[in-house]
Amino acid sequence: MFSVAVVGATGAVGTTMLSVLEERGFPVSKLVPLASERSAGRALDYLGQPREVRELRDDSFEGVDIALFSAGSARSKSFAPAAVEAGAVVIDNSSAYRMDPKVPLVVPEVNEAALEGHMGIVANPNCVAAPLVVALKPLAEAAGLERVVISSYQAVSGTGAAAVDELRSQTAGYLSEDEPAPDVYPHPIAFNAIPHIDVFDESGYTGEERKVRDETRKMLGMPDLRLSATCVRVPVMHSHSEAVHIETVDPLSADEARSLLMGAPGVVLVDEPALNSYPLPRDAAGRDDVMVGRIRDDDSHPRGLAMWIVADNLRKGAASNAVQIAESLVTKGWL
Amino acid sequence: MFSVAVVGATGAVGTTMLSVLEERGFPVSKLVPLASERSAGRALDYLGQPREVRELRDDSFEGVDIALFSAGSARSKSFAPAAVEAGAVVIDNSSAYRMDPKVPLVVPEVNEAALEGHMGIVANPNCVAAPLVVALKPLAEAAGLERVVISSYQAVSGTGAAAVDELRSQTAGYLSEDEPAPDVYPHPIAFNAIPHIDVFDESGYTGEERKVRDETRKMLGMPDLRLSATCVRVPVMHSHSEAVHIETVDPLSADEARSLLMGAPGVVLVDEPALNSYPLPRDAAGRDDVMVGRIRDDDSHPRGLAMWIVADNLRKGAASNAVQIAESLVTKGWL
Repeated sequence: MFSVAVVGATGAVGTTMLSVLEERGFPVSKLVPLASERSAGRALDYLGQPREVRELRDDSFEGVDIALFSAGSARSKSFAPAAVEAGAVVIDNSSAYRMDPKVPLVVPEVNEAALEGHMGIVANPNCVAAPLVVALKPLAEAAGLERVVISSYQAVSGTGAAAVDELRSQTAGYLSEDEPAPDVYPHPIAFNAIPHIDVFDESGYTGEERKVRDETRKMLGMPDLRLSATCVRVPVMHSHSEAVHIETVDPLSADEARSLLMGAPGVVLVDEPALNSYPLPRDAAGRDDVMVGRIRDDDSHPRGLAMWIVADNLRKGAASNAVQIAESLVTKGWL
Repeated sequence: MFSVAVVGATGAVGTTMLSVLEERGFPVSKLVPLASERSAGRALDYLGQPREVRELRDDSFEGVDIALFSAGSARSKSFAPAAVEAGAVVIDNSSAYRMDPKVPLVVPEVNEAALEGHMGIVANPNCVAAPLVVALKPLAEAAGLERVVISSYQAVSGTGAAAVDELRSQTAGYLSEDEPAPDVYPHPIAFNAIPHIDVFDESGYTGEERKVRDETRKMLGMPDLRLSATCVRVPVMHSHSEAVHIETVDPLSADEARSLLMGAPGVVLVDEPALNSYPLPRDAAGRDDVMVGRIRDDDSHPRGLAMWIVADNLRKGAASNAVQIAESLVTKGWL
């Protein structure tokens, strides 16, 4: 049994982490919910009992075995070293350490072996990259991967609980012709599509688009993989969708891809278009798997393949993957 | 001055056609709103006066110069021949005649010359293809076009007024936890993203995705253009957005593309990401131009370029383009 701290326990990902720990029956001897001073003192339910949220401090990690961080990059940088110092293994959901060559960036179905020999911190990937590599891995192994073009349809819960509230209140306001001004996003998100997630760089790409590229490369072990993303926020509460067009090295038909994905770890194939069956964000919400469908030969390229990937951004894109990493560390004896 | 019939006058596109005729000051001597028997007798406002909707019949087109059809493929096939017989030029918003080699498929900014020598029917393109060719044309002329990969974010008004009502009522129901079952779409559209527009074929593509490919090829005069689309319905009322990744024949930088598009007919450049300025569906609603932004070098391909295109699907994607075709026919003396 393990003492588990959840940093950012009151946030959208943090509360999902508690649910996922419960659901998956993770062997928790002691749960330590941590948050900012503002949230300290609140009680969170875990296994039917209220657990008091404590203030995150350098001395919060005494006796903690596993610290699941999801409180933003700044807090990860400030407090992860103290957690490691105290003997905990940090599984960090922020982008602070993801591209650090000494830190494994892991989706267990894809590159579990990278966990071995970690130095106390393991990074949990971006919420678009994580489902993407789950679907790409079996295809890359079978036929190689030359290029990936992806357009995302990202839910507001990826921004946090305040964004979910903003979508709700803006939507209600729009319908009653009394819409509140945007606050979390630079533009209204209700009934809109905003092609702007994270900050723009001089090349015109956003931080989110760079993360999808760089993290996919790192997790697949393909540092030169050609990948371009357009990341778009849409008025969806939960689950990110991805329209993915890939070019393989060797030819790979849609039928072959479907066979490969049908048995692939972490993947649920939802691909019966004649029955109106394909992945949908509302269907993926609350599930840990990556749903893949609309698999078809991309006839605009001799080795092209197109598909539609949907996963719950708070789960496979964040909390569930973090807990799966903890499970791998325990199972492999790498804690 | 011209006698103008609007077929399907009470629908989402039909009513927009009336607005656009008004706004653009089209020289209408007589307006003839036509619709199914069910809608006959209703009054529509045009230039401040009520106009009675008449039942669409074979003899509806006596004395009509221009007939703007937007009542679905079946009605176009049934009634367009009668309209032509009566001496009208039909501008048809349905897909009935678009791929007919004898029928011009036209976006005036792109291929106005194709109107010359028409045989009485001109086709108005699909609502994703029309804005796409407006943005692609100047780039194709400057650098050639090898391949286009596009993912769409399509508004419900493209399905019709009933779909707008469904999105409103489902959204309100979702927020109050009393959501009505889907009717227009096979799945809930509120807070969802449905990768299914038109019917699936055996290859796994939808009719909409095929239209985008085939109509883009026809309008650009590039019958072998490699193009693959993923078309997705999103909970947006008006305006379709498109994440577009292209490969040119000759190198074309993002800066060059921006210069070409800045002066291009029908295009409004909205591309100041540092100022949070990029095309948004809610900003495009009610406008006739195609908004283009997020132009950047697609570094996953040596001659790659990425951009984000947004246009009002009822206007540039339908009504405005139809009226622009009528304007071209008049101006060029090709009526």
